[in-house]
Amino acid sequence: MPYPQKVRKKASQSTTGELRLIERIRRRAVGTHAAELQLGIGDDCALLRLRAGDELVVTTDLSIDGRHFRLAWHPLEAIGHRTLARGLSDLAAMGARPLAAFLSLALPPDIANGKSIDQFLNGFFSLAAATGTPLAGGDLAESPIFAADIVLLGAVRTGRALLRSGARPGDLLYVTGALGGAAAGLAALARAKRKPRAGAPLHAVLARHLYPAPRLPQGQWLARHRAATAALDISDGLSTDLAHLCEASRVAAEIDLACLPIAPGATLEQALHGGEDYELLFTAAPGARVPGTIAGVAVTRIGRIVRRNVRRPMMTQLTASGPQPLTARGWEHFSGSV
Amino acid sequence: MPYPQKVRKKASQSTTGELRLIERIRRRAVGTHAAELQLGIGDDCALLRLRAGDELVVTTDLSIDGRHFRLAWHPLEAIGHRTLARGLSDLAAMGARPLAAFLSLALPPDIANGKSIDQFLNGFFSLAAATGTPLAGGDLAESPIFAADIVLLGAVRTGRALLRSGARPGDLLYVTGALGGAAAGLAALARAKRKPRAGAPLHAVLARHLYPAPRLPQGQWLARHRAATAALDISDGLSTDLAHLCEASRVAAEIDLACLPIAPGATLEQALHGGEDYELLFTAAPGARVPGTIAGVAVTRIGRIVRRNVRRPMMTQLTASGPQPLTARGWEHFSGSV
Repeated sequence: MPYPQKVRKKASQSTTGELRLIERIRRRAVGTHAAELQLGIGDDCALLRLRAGDELVVTTDLSIDGRHFRLAWHPLEAIGHRTLARGLSDLAAMGARPLAAFLSLALPPDIANGKSIDQFLNGFFSLAAATGTPLAGGDLAESPIFAADIVLLGAVRTGRALLRSGARPGDLLYVTGALGGAAAGLAALARAKRKPRAGAPLHAVLARHLYPAPRLPQGQWLARHRAATAALDISDGLSTDLAHLCEASRVAAEIDLACLPIAPGATLEQALHGGEDYELLFTAAPGARVPGTIAGVAVTRIGRIVRRNVRRPMMTQLTASGPQPLTARGWEHFSGSV
Repeated sequence: MPYPQKVRKKASQSTTGELRLIERIRRRAVGTHAAELQLGIGDDCALLRLRAGDELVVTTDLSIDGRHFRLAWHPLEAIGHRTLARGLSDLAAMGARPLAAFLSLALPPDIANGKSIDQFLNGFFSLAAATGTPLAGGDLAESPIFAADIVLLGAVRTGRALLRSGARPGDLLYVTGALGGAAAGLAALARAKRKPRAGAPLHAVLARHLYPAPRLPQGQWLARHRAATAALDISDGLSTDLAHLCEASRVAAEIDLACLPIAPGATLEQALHGGEDYELLFTAAPGARVPGTIAGVAVTRIGRIVRRNVRRPMMTQLTASGPQPLTARGWEHFSGSV
């Protein structure tokens, strides 16, 4: 099947360079399939048939050069990987499995016509193949600035989706993996102010930032076993995403700093407030069976949910010198001092 | 429900101007609902439950300033309308009804913080309300250039979707409405080289370009009555989109120029090759009952499908002086001479 008609339409309006690019994307898209995808690239719309008893989840994520990444620092493979990982992480947070991805690219001519776009596609399609995510459509357009908008469709058994709003006082608070690694990697990239050398082994700290692993098996395990009362992915940093969970569930939370799984090379500050780790933050009833690892990734209890009360802060951090208020400190990408 | 967490995430990273914008979008999104939409704006993903026996259709469309529109010529209301109309027209071409829209906006600060964004949203939400299309999510990011990526989800009864690939030799070729009006309107805009005066009555020729009507009732009628063997929307121009239909169905086509419904103010050239009319082009078996109007819009027979044959062109135009080959002439938006 040809690449999405939306792209094929552009073909008739475009340079032969764009035509070749469309053909390259089309060829790479045929490798991965999902049973639900009746018709992928090639008509006015893609067509999907859900399994009986499944619900559909949908997320979108827009990444722009200079704001979410920097072409000067980030290898194109990593930008392609991260574009897809950001969307897949949202599916993971709902406990869903991927059905289809749609990718819209705004491309400066030097990227569209050079090797850069192949590097981007390498990163994108490697993760797509690893996670069984078919590319089912998208759009291309020439642009003075590089941007990628990703849409992910996923499926979850009806009523099993992990929401932000289900946490109850008494629930325990858990996190997958380790925190702060992506922020430490970004800080290293900012110090170097250039891309990692191509072909050289990537330092583990950089890898956490450049190639995050969306926690799909972990989210799906939690949904399948009805183990979590609420969940979301940590994209903006623990303090900010915990605030989202507390607001959606109308509860308060306490975090025990001594329990926080801090990534190697990261600081406590980065673990608390650094973004883009794409770990899952979830709550479970006190009696629920939550294993120490899920699909090979550690699960750590970091605190508990308490009743919302005007006399105490929404978030509290338990430190060696006693409880202190915890403030959400947003992740600034490149809009701030980095 | 808050605006998509993807946008709420940005909120913590953003200026108070962006926060206000998110709140404005959120408030305007609550007006329109679809029964299938279980959870719209406010979690990691939107959640949809399809009716039994329905299939899902998905389309994406990326519009960028300078390529698909010009901020200097196009009123922001029209850009908002056209952003949604382009996606809805793809749903119409499949015979689907809208379930949910997802809108990603790359916004220069002067648009995000000024009245411009409200004008864009006026155009977007007017058409959303008129077509029963709820906004279920999206993303926002600051950007040096204005771009809008729209994703539309729709539903169609299983097996009833109108594809491009079903046309058979002997089928008759039809078009809804009239052709060339959008191209005539764009030509008028290009001559004026400025926006139409705000508040002044809009000339009908300009309206065809600025506020196209996606043919949702007509596409849904065709799917419901199994009246069409193939369909697509005319976004690139009749000659280009007919070529897509012929390629997908592996057939050839003849158009009778004397039958072509040319929009008032448009030339034959614009009707044949001008894009963005968003009318439906469809084929029906010779014995099928195709009414002269569907939901108030004229349906005109313009030609027929014939067997593909190496000795004749894929597309033929029947003129007063006999048959001549018809060549697909792509629509150039602003990449060419306009």
